[in-house]
Amino acid sequence: MNVREMRHADCMDLLSKSSLGRLACCKGNIPYLVPIQFRYAENRIRSFSLAGQKIEWMRANPNVCLEVEHFVSRHQWKCLLVQGQFQEQATQEQRDYAWSVLQEDNDWWEPGALKPNSPNVGDQNKPVYYTIAIDSITGREALGV
Amino acid sequence: MNVREMRHADCMDLLSKSSLGRLACCKGNIPYLVPIQFRYAENRIRSFSLAGQKIEWMRANPNVCLEVEHFVSRHQWKCLLVQGQFQEQATQEQRDYAWSVLQEDNDWWEPGALKPNSPNVGDQNKPVYYTIAIDSITGREALGV
Repeated sequence: MNVREMRHADCMDLLSKSSLGRLACCKGNIPYLVPIQFRYAENRIRSFSLAGQKIEWMRANPNVCLEVEHFVSRHQWKCLLVQGQFQEQATQEQRDYAWSVLQEDNDWWEPGALKPNSPNVGDQNKPVYYTIAIDSITGREALGV
Repeated sequence: MNVREMRHADCMDLLSKSSLGRLACCKGNIPYLVPIQFRYAENRIRSFSLAGQKIEWMRANPNVCLEVEHFVSRHQWKCLLVQGQFQEQATQEQRDYAWSVLQEDNDWWEPGALKPNSPNVGDQNKPVYYTIAIDSITGREALGV
């Protein structure tokens, strides 16, 4: 199989076209990861989540790693990794702007964030908007047999 | 969307039938994740990898998190998380046994582990066999609109 490092421009292109990835964070020396939906715009990755372990851990340690795959076949795929920093969008202005950007692709899913059977009250159901500032982005691609 | 916690038996069933997941580890306070192929047998997750960042980090900190998805549609999916411990299979006997188990599903792919353009010499190309001892397994499932 012919595997090579992706060019930076190809990484950015894949990131721009993708909306599903897996986000890893860690606390102490315990890693945690969940699937997320996101949107890349203006040099940042944007997403939102309900409150929960992922948000608590990223507030405590903002270092995150996002993985995005584009799978065609076992012999033809792309896989990129973003190392970056969680930044919560805490002001109303930031949240309003985040929503305006995110609703452009408003078919949200986010299995890792949805709380099963959570009561529809209180802060638990207020989405937390966040961005990931990109420190580095790398990728590998397989070009076929 | 109707989302609920998966029963333990359903988690184990999904794990048994799956071979692709994403494995997160961390070093210091930096998380890292890659797609892996694995096989679940005899109460352990088994896989192998070429040497590299993932193996180095798991040797330094054996705490790992494995995520497995089964996606049918945006409204019907399963997602499970395993928290566990990396354990390298270091003896020849362990390695031989690992290979005998892993070759039963020998259509290996593993994008995260393949080294692009690595020279075909030395320890870099010797696979490292490892198991993940399961500390906990949890999952969520969406059952449709």
